[in-house]
Amino acid sequence: MTDEKEILGTCPVDRGLMRVGDRWSMLILRDIERGLTRYEQLRTSLSIAPNILSRRLAALADAGLIEKSRYSQRPPRDEYLLTDAGRDFLPILLAIGAWGRKYNGAGALSRHLDAATGKVVRPVVVDANTGAPIGSRPLRFELPE
Amino acid sequence: MTDEKEILGTCPVDRGLMRVGDRWSMLILRDIERGLTRYEQLRTSLSIAPNILSRRLAALADAGLIEKSRYSQRPPRDEYLLTDAGRDFLPILLAIGAWGRKYNGAGALSRHLDAATGKVVRPVVVDANTGAPIGSRPLRFELPE
Repeated sequence: MTDEKEILGTCPVDRGLMRVGDRWSMLILRDIERGLTRYEQLRTSLSIAPNILSRRLAALADAGLIEKSRYSQRPPRDEYLLTDAGRDFLPILLAIGAWGRKYNGAGALSRHLDAATGKVVRPVVVDANTGAPIGSRPLRFELPE
Repeated sequence: MTDEKEILGTCPVDRGLMRVGDRWSMLILRDIERGLTRYEQLRTSLSIAPNILSRRLAALADAGLIEKSRYSQRPPRDEYLLTDAGRDFLPILLAIGAWGRKYNGAGALSRHLDAATGKVVRPVVVDANTGAPIGSRPLRFELPE
């Protein structure tokens, strides 16, 4: 598996996945966004082995998506907060959620509502230049020169 | 790690990640979309161990994102094509690419252009109801009843 000691490839998708490319990392970001910022809260929510959780938290911190913040001096206790980079990943999680709802959505699912309109959010990836959903217009792939 | 024999949770993000929740699976989808549809092409492009590639291809086929298609009868040879579910995941990969470009984008990177306008695509996740980027308006999270 590629890590940052290897030569960086030219694909931005892989560059993203190098930083947050597995299910646990993404679920940790999701949970922190929902307010589960403490180690024990994450461990309980995810039913994850402590060594795996610790490793993922360290990797996400190294990758700049979360940072430790001390919320108690005595006893010393840290929580994990999203950085700007971590917050910028959340819309991708909502897009994955929309895909999961469509293709693996049996039963009752949680959802996000727009707080102002009360409508269920419908995440879709568009090209900001045209507003058209990605996939609805032909694209051309270009390698760097 | 959750698999489909476990009880399905109520989170659509996790439902999506159950189907395609690791870096290799996402890179395989990316490569197939770029026309690398044959086993050897994928193996070379990804520098991936054959047993891992075979396992990921089987999992993606089980999950309904790709399907085998026989392109030669003699000798028998298969390639892998995206299903509708697999194609629907591609916009998410472009969103991950936009994130990767922003936060891990040193050096020259490949890119997608809109074939008609020639402009570089700027993938962004919006709420289809309002057109507003996800993250720009307050959302309310709701568990199923």
